[in-house]
Amino acid sequence: MRIFIEKDFEKMSQLAKEIVFSKMTEDRRVNLSLTGGSTPKRFYELLVDEIKDRGTQLDHVHYYPFDETIVLDKNNRVVGYDNFDALYQNFFKPANIDDQHIHRMKENQYADFAEKIEEAGGLDLMLFGMGEDGHFNANMPGSVQYDQKVYAVDLTKEYPWNTPYQESLGADQHADEMYTLGLPSLLKVKHAVLIVNGEHKAEAIDRAINGPIDPNFPSSYLRLHPNLTILMDAPASKKL
Amino acid sequence: MRIFIEKDFEKMSQLAKEIVFSKMTEDRRVNLSLTGGSTPKRFYELLVDEIKDRGTQLDHVHYYPFDETIVLDKNNRVVGYDNFDALYQNFFKPANIDDQHIHRMKENQYADFAEKIEEAGGLDLMLFGMGEDGHFNANMPGSVQYDQKVYAVDLTKEYPWNTPYQESLGADQHADEMYTLGLPSLLKVKHAVLIVNGEHKAEAIDRAINGPIDPNFPSSYLRLHPNLTILMDAPASKKL
Amino acid sequence: MRIFIEKDFEKMSQLAKEIVFSKMTEDRRVNLSLTGGSTPKRFYELLVDEIKDRGTQLDHVHYYPFDETIVLDKNNRVVGYDNFDALYQNFFKPANIDDQHIHRMKENQYADFAEKIEEAGGLDLMLFGMGEDGHFNANMPGSVQYDQKVYAVDLTKEYPWNTPYQESLGADQHADEMYTLGLPSLLKVKHAVLIVNGEHKAEAIDRAINGPIDPNFPSSYLRLHPNLTILMDAPASKKL
Amino acid sequence: MRIFIEKDFEKMSQLAKEIVFSKMTEDRRVNLSLTGGSTPKRFYELLVDEIKDRGTQLDHVHYYPFDETIVLDKNNRVVGYDNFDALYQNFFKPANIDDQHIHRMKENQYADFAEKIEEAGGLDLMLFGMGEDGHFNANMPGSVQYDQKVYAVDLTKEYPWNTPYQESLGADQHADEMYTLGLPSLLKVKHAVLIVNGEHKAEAIDRAINGPIDPNFPSSYLRLHPNLTILMDAPASKKL
Repeated sequence: MRIFIEKDFEKMSQLAKEIVFSKMTEDRRVNLSLTGGSTPKRFYELLVDEIKDRGTQLDHVHYYPFDETIVLDKNNRVVGYDNFDALYQNFFKPANIDDQHIHRMKENQYADFAEKIEEAGGLDLMLFGMGEDGHFNANMPGSVQYDQKVYAVDLTKEYPWNTPYQESLGADQHADEMYTLGLPSLLKVKHAVLIVNGEHKAEAIDRAINGPIDPNFPSSYLRLHPNLTILMDAPASKKL
Repeated sequence: MRIFIEKDFEKMSQLAKEIVFSKMTEDRRVNLSLTGGSTPKRFYELLVDEIKDRGTQLDHVHYYPFDETIVLDKNNRVVGYDNFDALYQNFFKPANIDDQHIHRMKENQYADFAEKIEEAGGLDLMLFGMGEDGHFNANMPGSVQYDQKVYAVDLTKEYPWNTPYQESLGADQHADEMYTLGLPSLLKVKHAVLIVNGEHKAEAIDRAINGPIDPNFPSSYLRLHPNLTILMDAPASKKL
Repeated sequence: MRIFIEKDFEKMSQLAKEIVFSKMTEDRRVNLSLTGGSTPKRFYELLVDEIKDRGTQLDHVHYYPFDETIVLDKNNRVVGYDNFDALYQNFFKPANIDDQHIHRMKENQYADFAEKIEEAGGLDLMLFGMGEDGHFNANMPGSVQYDQKVYAVDLTKEYPWNTPYQESLGADQHADEMYTLGLPSLLKVKHAVLIVNGEHKAEAIDRAINGPIDPNFPSSYLRLHPNLTILMDAPASKKL
Repeated sequence: MRIFIEKDFEKMSQLAKEIVFSKMTEDRRVNLSLTGGSTPKRFYELLVDEIKDRGTQLDHVHYYPFDETIVLDKNNRVVGYDNFDALYQNFFKPANIDDQHIHRMKENQYADFAEKIEEAGGLDLMLFGMGEDGHFNANMPGSVQYDQKVYAVDLTKEYPWNTPYQESLGADQHADEMYTLGLPSLLKVKHAVLIVNGEHKAEAIDRAINGPIDPNFPSSYLRLHPNLTILMDAPASKKL
């Protein structure tokens, strides 16, 4: 684990972009898994600027999600993919990424995803965030399965985090299930880059780094990663 | 995790020797951590035969212990090193390994050992065993610290495994402290090779592979390793 | 470059088998390129014995040729593949390798082969031989193109080695073209293992190792490889 | 080989800095070899800004030269080190790099330098330039030894490039000998990054990339590297 505290969100986003783009300059297939959340908005703007006009020069780069949630309408028809849709808007579309380089988890197509990644040579880099509740990827408190490479979670009322999530989807939409890579898959990523920003995450990141390894706080397992870089802005570092 | 079930102890030992020696054929510094226990006796005989006459041809290979216990006499003078002494008898001496390639944890010299390994480029391969009680390295039930790269354990009566261990040292000797690499260091090893033999370990290895990840059973964490090979003989595989 | 001189052909073949099989024990996709020539006959017998009953346990292993020659009959119909046919007889068939794990160069399908290998994550290990004339793979004196990742060679009379080769195919068969990976592809292999046996090769291997880098003797470039292991039997080492 | 053409010197220097600094964010020992020439002035300014206040956070990074020339006065006393002195001024001093992380070739201390690098785990990244005459590192036309990991060159009048070099040292100084890593050492670097700027280098970089592999033009061998990234500005790319 190596920690880099940058002075603000802009500098943290810039460094995240530099690390991700640097990986793309190598002369071999590069498999990336990039987060779809809100933390990296600025990161995506910077990355899009860097690569949108590079065309086939980046044909060796492939993208894999680390989680996905299928969004349904009232009739249980699939109307969206929570992760993919965000990535598509923020990154794949403006950066002109070819469909053939975008790998996806779709409805009922997740069980062999860890295997697919291994067949492709493994993930070279994952850029991901963590929540105040300690989740990383969709490894959530209560539903996390620490020994699974990939697994599905039924989005039931037993999980406190589920209700606000369902509400965030809007009145006409809901989700029954989400898929996520698990801890063993994270630990296989050759370079894991965690980005954390904002004072509201200061306590959570301190707990992840310095607290006990705690099954109820998934991010406390991240320090087990053999090659983890943590990027944070100054406000997120206040409790360290 | 990839599991190889060999028909007997001889074949398992042979395969262990092949994997370890193959690593030595590469043209770069090779850092190995080899177990000092009783399981690999035959492995050491085979490895000694393979390398004892190769001289400076293997000067690129370095050896690091993953644990050590300081043995004291009645006057608390150091009279031995539990791990090193066994390795020295079974391997270093008969294989003519030069002292300069043998790195050691000595009394009060363990705290920077994980750092020393990292400075040397990390461990390329660890060959290790596991106990019926679920321990690996000296990560014992009750004393294991899952978040530490390296740590010391006071050998007090609170641990059920300590009494038989002290007795095994003989009437005139005892040990107050042992040192061990921890889980984060194991997870950094580029290729981890676990060897398990005998029907008496069948239940333990099944629990390690198929049971829940359980803080009271350290070997259940091994499946988190990004590149783990398990070698066992047929009797050890009976409960899988 | 690291050189291992084994006492005889049997021991050299055994060590080659150990290195190749050890690579298969790792928990990740493994891409191998194995020679189809006569030097490794014994190697294949040993490897077949090791893996023929392991079934799906080795499903992570893929095989790629490093060269191929299309064999034609009098009517220029394809009747065989010089490399594949030998590998199929000596290895793929007796070892029960699934077709899906065997990748091939077929007629007019070679140009993107280096790219296919890169998309699959690159070659982890190549086991190959060299000729008394200094060739490796099908990088032959006179026809070798040192800057090409993969290329085709027209089998014309201008090459002294071509006539005996055509004769070796028998009266009714001939070959017009052969394909081969080139030096840049060899240099990308993560571990290159060269096997050389017999006193008749003693001069060639000495020239490859100790002579000048010479465009007319392709094997003299092998020492540029970043991770090359040379296995030879004692007779082959006589001129070193 | 992967080529990135940036619009100007500033952008090329920025990308070089990003690639080098990104490597430093990984959680393992990092061995770098950075050029001391004039091309990367701006690169060093940017890198110094990035790391000068990071203190012990970068203690895992080590620096190795790829060449050195000993500068002598009229009495043949050593008065300087051509490469080190430039690096010290442009980088080590302003970036506050600790002496213990700076490895050096000194007078008569070069022969085991390739071995020292291998003992340290190998070079993770080399950033280097090339000359209009095709040299890289101090592998100069006429004096290059393609099969040596490291070697010394007597700076005699037989080399056309030597006279202007001696003059560049000033009236009171001269150099008799220079040391350099050779092609086999370059090919062992895990990521080689070549930077080329200016229209005056357009022809040379085109020849390096697209011309024949030519013993008289050392940079034509660079394309053999298994993981080479070429960064150039638009003027340098005019002949491609």
